[in-house]
Amino acid sequence: MSGRVLVVDDVATNRLLLRAKLSSAYYDVVVAENGTQALELARSEQPDMVMLDVMMPDIDGFEVCAVLKSKPETAHIPVIMVTALDTPEERIRGLEAGADDFLSKPFNDLALFARVRNLMRMKMMFDELRLRDMTSRELGLADLVSEPEVDIEAGGPILLAPPSDEQGMAWAAQLSDRLSVPVIVTHSEREALNLARLELPDCFVVHQTLDEGGDGLRLVSALRSRPETRQSAVILVVDNGDVQTAAKGLDLGASDYIEAPFDVSELIARIRSQLRRKRYSDRLRTNLRNGLKLAVIDPLTGIYNRRYASQHMNRVMERARETGGVYAVMMIDLDKFKSINDRFGHDAGDAVLREFSRRLQENIRGVDLVARFGGEEFFVAMPDVDQHAAAAAAERIRRAIEGAPVPLPGDGEVEVTVSIGVAIATAEDADAEAVIKRADRALYNSKQTGRNRVTFAQAA
Amino acid sequence: MSGRVLVVDDVATNRLLLRAKLSSAYYDVVVAENGTQALELARSEQPDMVMLDVMMPDIDGFEVCAVLKSKPETAHIPVIMVTALDTPEERIRGLEAGADDFLSKPFNDLALFARVRNLMRMKMMFDELRLRDMTSRELGLADLVSEPEVDIEAGGPILLAPPSDEQGMAWAAQLSDRLSVPVIVTHSEREALNLARLELPDCFVVHQTLDEGGDGLRLVSALRSRPETRQSAVILVVDNGDVQTAAKGLDLGASDYIEAPFDVSELIARIRSQLRRKRYSDRLRTNLRNGLKLAVIDPLTGIYNRRYASQHMNRVMERARETGGVYAVMMIDLDKFKSINDRFGHDAGDAVLREFSRRLQENIRGVDLVARFGGEEFFVAMPDVDQHAAAAAAERIRRAIEGAPVPLPGDGEVEVTVSIGVAIATAEDADAEAVIKRADRALYNSKQTGRNRVTFAQAA
Repeated sequence: MSGRVLVVDDVATNRLLLRAKLSSAYYDVVVAENGTQALELARSEQPDMVMLDVMMPDIDGFEVCAVLKSKPETAHIPVIMVTALDTPEERIRGLEAGADDFLSKPFNDLALFARVRNLMRMKMMFDELRLRDMTSRELGLADLVSEPEVDIEAGGPILLAPPSDEQGMAWAAQLSDRLSVPVIVTHSEREALNLARLELPDCFVVHQTLDEGGDGLRLVSALRSRPETRQSAVILVVDNGDVQTAAKGLDLGASDYIEAPFDVSELIARIRSQLRRKRYSDRLRTNLRNGLKLAVIDPLTGIYNRRYASQHMNRVMERARETGGVYAVMMIDLDKFKSINDRFGHDAGDAVLREFSRRLQENIRGVDLVARFGGEEFFVAMPDVDQHAAAAAAERIRRAIEGAPVPLPGDGEVEVTVSIGVAIATAEDADAEAVIKRADRALYNSKQTGRNRVTFAQAA
Repeated sequence: MSGRVLVVDDVATNRLLLRAKLSSAYYDVVVAENGTQALELARSEQPDMVMLDVMMPDIDGFEVCAVLKSKPETAHIPVIMVTALDTPEERIRGLEAGADDFLSKPFNDLALFARVRNLMRMKMMFDELRLRDMTSRELGLADLVSEPEVDIEAGGPILLAPPSDEQGMAWAAQLSDRLSVPVIVTHSEREALNLARLELPDCFVVHQTLDEGGDGLRLVSALRSRPETRQSAVILVVDNGDVQTAAKGLDLGASDYIEAPFDVSELIARIRSQLRRKRYSDRLRTNLRNGLKLAVIDPLTGIYNRRYASQHMNRVMERARETGGVYAVMMIDLDKFKSINDRFGHDAGDAVLREFSRRLQENIRGVDLVARFGGEEFFVAMPDVDQHAAAAAAERIRRAIEGAPVPLPGDGEVEVTVSIGVAIATAEDADAEAVIKRADRALYNSKQTGRNRVTFAQAA
């Protein structure tokens, strides 16, 4: 994939060189001469990637990177630090500033382009997720649904696929000392895949050659093609200087690579950096799911709303048609609810609605569905339930609310009763609204005949 | 990216050859010997791609493709048809059956892998979107939010970037005859990019060399790196047999390519196939957006719900803090609404709520927000409005509902009035709930003093 790259370097020849290389591969290139300009252009040009020189006179690369990663409008842009020194200490410092990778001058084209392709692909996925996230923000849902940021070391285990048992033990010992997540060592390619399915690791560290003739690249590829590990972080360990394998690994979907023998601190910094990225995309996905869920939840009581109940009724009816079974629908209304609001205020009314929802949920089965239709009106759908069982359930619900007064906020309590209407439906009932209407009429009868009672609807 | 490929061929040596090629590039390969097995495995193994031989004894490739594309559980899997004949007629037949591309035996590795990489990348994007779509389905939102399938030729124009004006005229004439969307011819790379931004085409047809020394690949790359064209279909036209350029184009993000000179019917079939794919992903994105929107919309009246209003209030308050301005908040309650429900039934009550929402919206400004808080209770937020303007607006709303009876479903009508409470707030008001409570108390006063009137809250 193509995309826009911001090249930041204080030396003109370096800028020209990188611009020429990237342009020849059809990347769109923007250049900045110093850190200040880089920060400006990153915001105004919204590049898909930043290639950032470490040594610059005004603000050095580490600081530029840290600033980019700390601002919401640029935090999602991948950063490659370009360095002349290339020591583990420098790399760790960069990773801690939020860098996604390092390239040392002079450039190896294979390594450069494999990394750029890899980061562009990742950026494209993030953009898709971020676009949806922006919709949530526009709608004001973001504050309601945002998952809290979690500790990056609070998640699934780290799975090691080492070149030998001996190496595996050594890696595990060093990592376990300094990471708080469990570390699992595997002994073959096949075992790694099995454990991946069972343990759902958040991060894999895979050596290019595995025990028993296993192939690390094949494992990377397999992890990426399976739904359960597609989103996991995968760090490939390659032999020192084996740029070919590293590039191939990145193209197959490895998140990062490190050359062996490695400094354990650097591996840990890379693991933490990948976990941070994974936590961020997981959060975006969960927020989106939570946002969608809000559409079917009643905010006051936390139970489903009428919208969800209507859709759910279709599924209940379909099931009845398939199995030929019967099912029950209840409409429930709090008696004289208006007078509670009038006497004790809206907060008291809200407390009663919440408490009734709670008791209602305690008195139905897991397969039943309760929903608030609006106001003081509730709905229950009970699949595979006949008149006898429905009567028992309705009576249980009626007594659950009559049996104990509802505590009010602040102080005091209030006696509450409910009226219930029940309709029994069969596979022949093709119209959900008609079934609900029958239950509603039965509810009306309960109200007319004195409240605090259960009435069954006439068969259709 | 790696992934799982289902290879379908009735000849064992062909299966072995493709399996070897794909495995060496670390793809996970599953094989089927005939059409029936292919349909089974496509469902059970959920491959990321199917490579499908055309000539098979039981069910031929076209039919297998058509069946795969017609079933919801396999329709999203890209299909490459593998053919020995390779005529335009055959390709058109395949495209109409839903195929994504064709490869002719013997395979050119460059063409094969560029196409496989390209389709894998597309599949990955679709999977991300489909996952979100499945969430909507689980929550029962899908039926409520699904955009209707639109005519694939009902959308933005097709933009042509030909090698010369002469060629451009010829292409346009042939395409305009047989497509119902407008066709735009551009005369340079720069003009193509400008028009892309202004006309938002759904599909681009780009020749590898452009007039005035332009570069088709560079244009493809630029289209892919800009947000406004990132999701458009891009078909690259390459010289006959120039597999190198075709492969490069696919890697840069072209959706498809065709070799010139081409059969116009084939180009049209490819355009239609790409538009179909684009319409599908557009629909998934819109459905998701609609799903999120449901979380803040009151289903009965179609206006915003309390959840949205609360978030919106935060923004109104923030703005007031920035500008030092005042704003007004109204709480509105339909008078004696319960008696409408009791006398005319719930349907009549619903009609009154809907009609009031409509009149309410007609009597506020575009920057104001109306929301239904629940039951017969409505909310209005009016930024930059002082007591004088708020009084006029509230009075206008009161009269809008008092002025004409509300028609009821079936027959008849009912006179309706509303009581209104208004609070004026300033930058000093830091608690949204407190402002709303003040308006609510004023509303209570309106009720107590005879209804059908507007009361202002005491300043905080």
